[in-house]
Formats: sequence, structure tokens, C-alpha cells
Amino acid sequence: MPKPCAYVLGAGKTRFGPTSKTIPQLAQEAIIEALSDARLDPCDIGAVIVGNFLGGPNESQLHLNSVVAGLLPGLNLPSWRTEAACASGGVAVHQAVLALSRYDNILVVGVERMSNVVGMELTRNIGMAGDVVLDQIAGLNFPANYALVAQSHFAEYGTTPRDLELISLKNHANANLNPKAHFHLKEVCQADIDAGPPVASPLRLFDCCPVSDGAAAVIISSRRADSRSVPILGSAVASDVISLAQRSTCTSFPAARAAAEAAYAEAHIDSRDIDFAEVHDCFTIAELVAMEDLALADRGQATMLVRDGQTSIGGRIPVNASGGLKAGGHAIGATGVGQIYESVLQLRGEAGSRQVEGASVGVAHNVGGVGGTCSVHVLGGAT
Amino acid sequence: MPKPCAYVLGAGKTRFGPTSKTIPQLAQEAIIEALSDARLDPCDIGAVIVGNFLGGPNESQLHLNSVVAGLLPGLNLPSWRTEAACASGGVAVHQAVLALSRYDNILVVGVERMSNVVGMELTRNIGMAGDVVLDQIAGLNFPANYALVAQSHFAEYGTTPRDLELISLKNHANANLNPKAHFHLKEVCQADIDAGPPVASPLRLFDCCPVSDGAAAVIISSRRADSRSVPILGSAVASDVISLAQRSTCTSFPAARAAAEAAYAEAHIDSRDIDFAEVHDCFTIAELVAMEDLALADRGQATMLVRDGQTSIGGRIPVNASGGLKAGGHAIGATGVGQIYESVLQLRGEAGSRQVEGASVGVAHNVGGVGGTCSVHVLGGAT
Repeated sequence: MPKPCAYVLGAGKTRFGPTSKTIPQLAQEAIIEALSDARLDPCDIGAVIVGNFLGGPNESQLHLNSVVAGLLPGLNLPSWRTEAACASGGVAVHQAVLALSRYDNILVVGVERMSNVVGMELTRNIGMAGDVVLDQIAGLNFPANYALVAQSHFAEYGTTPRDLELISLKNHANANLNPKAHFHLKEVCQADIDAGPPVASPLRLFDCCPVSDGAAAVIISSRRADSRSVPILGSAVASDVISLAQRSTCTSFPAARAAAEAAYAEAHIDSRDIDFAEVHDCFTIAELVAMEDLALADRGQATMLVRDGQTSIGGRIPVNASGGLKAGGHAIGATGVGQIYESVLQLRGEAGSRQVEGASVGVAHNVGGVGGTCSVHVLGGAT
Repeated sequence: MPKPCAYVLGAGKTRFGPTSKTIPQLAQEAIIEALSDARLDPCDIGAVIVGNFLGGPNESQLHLNSVVAGLLPGLNLPSWRTEAACASGGVAVHQAVLALSRYDNILVVGVERMSNVVGMELTRNIGMAGDVVLDQIAGLNFPANYALVAQSHFAEYGTTPRDLELISLKNHANANLNPKAHFHLKEVCQADIDAGPPVASPLRLFDCCPVSDGAAAVIISSRRADSRSVPILGSAVASDVISLAQRSTCTSFPAARAAAEAAYAEAHIDSRDIDFAEVHDCFTIAELVAMEDLALADRGQATMLVRDGQTSIGGRIPVNASGGLKAGGHAIGATGVGQIYESVLQLRGEAGSRQVEGASVGVAHNVGGVGGTCSVHVLGGAT
């Protein structure tokens, strides 16, 4: 294994889901847990990076780095907010890895509040992650974009609605094992999924992730503190044109492929070395695309792993043991940081009833828009 | 002189001011000029960082890193958007310096469109840079915040409205020499300033910067390309609590002092080595506070330099030879990048009729909100 590019010293996360808590309250809860987990004080922190997407449209509060860094008062720390749509959190973690060139013990906080805005206004705000000028205003909102991805995958590879249902069932089952997941739907079954109304054909209600509030925090360092420190072996970000209409394929995100390739190269691994994956399943079809972009399966072949149960906990390559975005929740700016939190728990063997046995290398995959930005992190290895 | 932490290989900037151009059009214009200035092709670029503040509220378009990096198609570059209120641009440049640990020839693009939103809606949107919960909604908007700063400075140090007028006159005179400035008011004089309506006492119309559209771009590298490459000797960012009500003083921004101290230490200079400064004069009073925070004058003493004409072009320490935000314009996310553009021109001797003679060390100072975030860059030295 190569020298890790960074270590995660501590991690914290609120439960994802609707809440009356404010952005500073959510951030503080995650920060306190991360500091406690790392056994650090606020004065040990060297910089603060805030991942957030909708602070402006949903909260009328920008400049959130000042709000969040101000929770550690008197320190005048370097801080900024990172926004890359739904990949804001993962990109913020990548920035922390880069910023180790100057700072240490960098606190990355992903935070989002979404439940305070509803209906068409929220649809419009989320749509700001996509091409507003040509796509979103014309009605090609996010469910519609991912419906195009699904239709293309069905046409090219013979994927079926039943494959998507299996992903939904798996992720809801996993979320039931995660106390910080958005959904704990003990009774969810095939009949419930079949009864879900269509959202954008072929996607039905249970193919779509929920709207969540929440925060997650991790502390990134250039050096191992103790045996609980989790190495980051590879960290990469790539981007693409914002609209599917500008690309040559709808069944793969080139930015995800580029980020995975770069992260694996840095980590000196290939996809066969990966024991578990936390991937960006904003819609069930996105989990299939993610598995293929991460080279966990050949193009069009991820469905085989799903049908065989190989992506369940206990399978060959568990995907979204946390419940994923689909059932664990999607608090946009917090999601990518929450994937790192989950990976830390898995790699330490602290994931309780959803623990992936023998987990020693994990990958976290966070997507903005319909693949306009993607981050990939490889964690684990040398403990 | 120490080894520079980075070099600016090329710089470009649109004129600041109202325009019908869109964000991608503005960004493209600045990018093409920066690439041409650096004699680089798009495929030489290693990463793209976008500084922008109001993409969400003003444009309904977030994920601007994908939009802007997508102007260099087929490259799948690492990219993200940085937001730190009005310091978004300066912080984006700092991030590029940090990211040289992994990438090279980093394209930093600051871009903002403001003239498409007017009146109370724009006031509300700009207010998102301040504390929305307690300050802005209660009426303590940005002119009111800086009026408190001015009243405090008047009370503590005997500063007068006439001092602020001198700053306004100087910056309008400088802007007349800058073809890319927002204002070219050939006739602006004392009588015009006196006739300006009060905005928030003691600030009148000519104490306030305008609402500008615009973009600026710079290319940051770890190595000198040729004799036109401009060294960055120091780069720092610091933050503070967001509201003046949370701080012990209104006449200084601790984040600016912390950033200046860190940047000067990295550059191995003190303030007496500085030949010119581009500072964040969103209001005239902010120029005085900036000079004191940058240690160009002792606290309360910056007025003496202004009264003596020492901050004019040809004076001992020219401040805002570009016209500053006040008259050069304030296209928020572009402003901090535009300060680097101006510094590059000055240090190369390419600033035309506003050239500061003998300019060899310059400082750029960019503030978010009322000092919630500040970046300071020291440029020049070893050419």
C-alpha cells in the first residue's frame, strides 16, 4: 500500500431526516461528535471547510463558513464554503486533503436544511444543481433526468424495474440497521414498492431518495493519531458539462469514471480490492450507474450482482450498508461527508448490526447534478 | 525574499459594470484573456476553481463549477465553486495556492451577475452575506453595518465625513484611468459628492460601491513560466463570527488582521515593504479600516495618509489605483480575483496611466460581509 494522503481522526453525524433544528445547531451537533471522537479540542483545529448546497435559496443565508467557523469562536481560522451541488460534501473532503499542504486537523462540516421549504419551491431550488437555462425550466428536473438515465440503461442493457426494486428493498433493509438513517420503515416490502406512484417513468416513489436535513463532520490530518485513525488512500474530483444533452452517453458519468480512475491510481488499488462502497444513489438507477462507473461491475453488468444479492451486507461487495441516500437520507451538502463517516465506522468495525465483515478497503462516491461533478475517496488499508 | 508559494502566469478581466452578458459569457471572456496572457491552451489547465456569491439567489443556477469548467469541454477537470460572501474570489485564489500540492496551472475564475436583480430583492440577496437571523431582517443591512463602523471610527479617532469624501474622489479619479472600471465619471467633484443623498448616516451615495456584473480569471502555477510570471509571496485566509454584535470592536476586522499577519510572515515582509495596495472598499470607511488592518497605518491614523494625498497614485502608498470597489466596481465573486489581475498589471508595469512607479511589492485584501472572512495576498518581489 502507498503512503496515505491523509487520515480521518474523527467523525460525527446527526441523524438525517426532517427536523426543526437550524443549520448552526445541526453543524454543532456533528462537530461536537467529531471532536469527541478524535479526542481533540476546538483549538486543535487548523481550518474549517463547509460543504453546503442550498444555504442561499433555502435559508437566505450565505457566508455559512463564517456562521459555522464562528461556532469555534476566538480562533479566526481559515474557512470557506464549498459548493458543487450534491457533491459539495465529498468535494469539501477533497479540498481538505489538498489543504494539508498548509493546515492540519482540518474540520470538514457538511450541512443542509431542506425540510423548511416544500413543493414547487423546493423542486426549483434543487433544480439549481442542473442546467437551469435549457433543462430545468423546460421540465427536465432531477427525477426526469434520472428517468432518462434509467430508460437508457433499460434499452442498452436489459435492466428492468424489478432490478431497481431490489436496490430499494436492500437499501431500506440496511437503513433499518442504521440508527442515524432517515427511514426506519420496518414493514417495507415488494407490495409497498409496487403501490408507489410513478414520479418520472420508469422511476416510482420508492426509487427516489427523500429530502433530508442533517450534518456530518470529519477531521482530516496529515498524520495518524492512534489506531482509530482511518487512512485516506486516494482522493479525487472530476467534473463534466452540466447537461445530459451535452454528452454522448446517459448510462455512465465520465466525471465519476475519471475520479475513480484517479483515486484508484493514487491508492494503488483496483476495484477488486474494494470490500464495500458507499455510492450516490439519489435514485435507484444511480446505484447501478455508480457501480459500473466505479468498475465494481462491467458496464451493464451491475444488475447481475444485485440479482444475486452480492451487494447486500454479507454479499461479495456490499453497497450502501448505511442505507445510502435512498433510505439513509440525502441532506445534500452533508451527504458526501456522511459517506466518509460511514466508511470510518465500517473500517473501524464500529458499524454494529450493519457491519461489513472483514472490511479493510472502502470507497465513497458522491455525485453533483447528473454527473456534473463527482468525488471518489478510497479509505482503509494500513491500520 | 523567500521562495514564492505560487506564480500568476496569466490574468484576464472583463470590464466591471452592468451588462446583458450571462455568467458563462462573462466567465469565458475572462478565461480567454487569461489563457492568452499566459500563452496556455485549455488542455494545459489542471483544475478550475470558481468564485461566486449570488449564483443561487440571483441566477437560480448553482453548480457553477460545472457550468464554467464545462467551457473547457472534454477535460473532466477537478473543479468546485468557492463561496465566502464578498471574499469568494480572494479565497478561491488561496485555495488554488493550496491545491498546487496536487494540481498545476489552476484556473481561478471569479464571476458575478447582479444587475439582473434590482431593488429590495437585491438588497435581500446581498444581505445573505451577513447575519440573516438577527441583523439583516431587523434592518441592519450592509450600508447600515458599515455606517456603524464609520460612526465608531468617527467617535474613536476623530475621522470626519470629509476624509471619506477624499477617498471617494481619489477612487473615482483612479477609475477614470482604468478602462475596465465600472465608473468613468469625468466630472465627479466635491459638489457632486455633497449632493449625494444619505444612504445610512454618515454614509452618502458616493461612499458606497456600485452593483456590478463582471468576471476575472487568473492562472496559478507552482513554477515561473517566464519573466511575465508574477510571484505570490504570501497567501492567507482568516474568518470571524458573522455579526458585529458578536465582536468587541467595530473599527477593525480581526480576520483581516490575522490574514495580513499570516501573509506578511509567509512573504517575509512587513507593511513598510509594500508599494501599493488593492483593498476592499465596499464603502469608503472600509478603505480606512483596511489600511489599518493591513498595518499600512496605525489604528486611527489612516486618515492622515489620506489627507496628505499619500494614498493617491504618486503618493507614498497608493491604495486602489484601479479605482477600488468604490469606482472600479464590485462584481462580488469576481472582486478578489480582479484585485490579483490589477496587482499583476502593476507589478509588470502594464497599468498604463494608473501605473504606480517602482511597484515591486503589492498587497490584495478581500473581505466577506463585515469581516466574517478575509483573504490577503502579497505579490511581487523576485522578478
